[in-house]
Amino acid sequence: MPFTHHRTVRLADTDAAGVVFFARTLMLCHEAYEESLARAGLDLKQFLGGADLIVPISKSEAEYLRPLCCGDKLAITVKPSALTATSFAIQFEITKLGPPDKLAARIRTEHVATSVSKRERLPLSPALLAWISDS
Amino acid sequence: MPFTHHRTVRLADTDAAGVVFFARTLMLCHEAYEESLARAGLDLKQFLGGADLIVPISKSEAEYLRPLCCGDKLAITVKPSALTATSFAIQFEITKLGPPDKLAARIRTEHVATSVSKRERLPLSPALLAWISDS
Amino acid sequence: MPFTHHRTVRLADTDAAGVVFFARTLMLCHEAYEESLARAGLDLKQFLGGADLIVPISKSEAEYLRPLCCGDKLAITVKPSALTATSFAIQFEITKLGPPDKLAARIRTEHVATSVSKRERLPLSPALLAWISDS
Amino acid sequence: MPFTHHRTVRLADTDAAGVVFFARTLMLCHEAYEESLARAGLDLKQFLGGADLIVPISKSEAEYLRPLCCGDKLAITVKPSALTATSFAIQFEITKLGPPDKLAARIRTEHVATSVSKRERLPLSPALLAWISDS
Repeated sequence: MPFTHHRTVRLADTDAAGVVFFARTLMLCHEAYEESLARAGLDLKQFLGGADLIVPISKSEAEYLRPLCCGDKLAITVKPSALTATSFAIQFEITKLGPPDKLAARIRTEHVATSVSKRERLPLSPALLAWISDS
Repeated sequence: MPFTHHRTVRLADTDAAGVVFFARTLMLCHEAYEESLARAGLDLKQFLGGADLIVPISKSEAEYLRPLCCGDKLAITVKPSALTATSFAIQFEITKLGPPDKLAARIRTEHVATSVSKRERLPLSPALLAWISDS
Repeated sequence: MPFTHHRTVRLADTDAAGVVFFARTLMLCHEAYEESLARAGLDLKQFLGGADLIVPISKSEAEYLRPLCCGDKLAITVKPSALTATSFAIQFEITKLGPPDKLAARIRTEHVATSVSKRERLPLSPALLAWISDS
Repeated sequence: MPFTHHRTVRLADTDAAGVVFFARTLMLCHEAYEESLARAGLDLKQFLGGADLIVPISKSEAEYLRPLCCGDKLAITVKPSALTATSFAIQFEITKLGPPDKLAARIRTEHVATSVSKRERLPLSPALLAWISDS
């Protein structure tokens, strides 16, 4: 079972077309990613607070299947997989909870482990590898 | 006891200064307001989906007491009070959970019940009045 | 020459990693799209204000090639192309202005003309077709 | 004449109520502040890139007088004034351009010069004082 993050759509997520602005769908996925890391004891703060390893997103792909409205209850699954020694991908699925539940979006991101000081790729840390294999 | 909304600070809430961008603090409060309405069965969607009554924010005041960082756990309290027959205020307090807990921001908003069709003030609905008196 | 939108990166575009949050890169492209439509006399408001034709984004793909920082000057090109009678794609390139100029991101979106009332696909309007062929 | 920043309202600025989400009004003002600093040669990046002086916002007050819609053309004026040796305020006015032009919001922010390393107040730098007196 992949990690699942629950989230209600907020007014600030929506735009004047009445639905979640497409780019904010990716923010919802990043929240789920942060929550998944946190559950594994792998706080995103570690990547921010002076550590040399950062994991910027190099690619994203998204299919927006259904509009999401303010108040909608969402379940967002997070499935990471290793790509190379220095990168991983995450597959997200956003389901609009019903009944009936309906798949609303599929997103895929790629993340590259990078050294801040050397500006070059780094091997994924043991903690990240453990998170990937356990997820 | 006022309604309390729990929220983790996300990367997308922060800016390059490393902390929550000041205006996003107000978004966190609005989320808490939406959640408080939802708990009272008063979905914000009702204000969006063609109903004639909307409740736009006419004023906001905020004191930003402490920086909030990615991963911080927050408790946001929501205390509405009636102002006039057509308006109410909400007092929010954002506490950064510890230990020790620390008050991080105080925000106050004013909301004016307005008719979409007539573009004039309307009395607060019984549901809003009940939410105010019960909160 | 494709339409080019100029934009400075703002603090609110960045996150605590010090660079533009990946999903906000897509917002920058949408701004450029809105500006391109406006130059062609095709206000996005028309798609919002009760018209039956809307053009939601069904897919997005992005490659994030370089980090973008607060204060960076960007040039964003917008190249639409028809896909089917009911859909079009846009290719965006974000260049970080130098000297030297550096390509910072490539984004592609797909948009599907849709009837709000019938919830089915509609042919692209003559105004949209003209915008595509002139861009 | 105060510095004036021109900005078009974008779809991502709005919410499902069809207008600019109240907290995003403050972001528009911050953009105008950044632009005003940049015109004075005082890049916000300096406050972000390792300098010891930062100028966080300690308070904000806003009156939202008129709804702002996607596509609206705005003029935002920026009037800073010194408060104490270590703080200043900015008065913003957002005008929705017509004809006729209409005042849409009044915002006031307070900024406190702070040492990152010592976590205490610092005197305003000569560059900030010059920006305030010239604005």
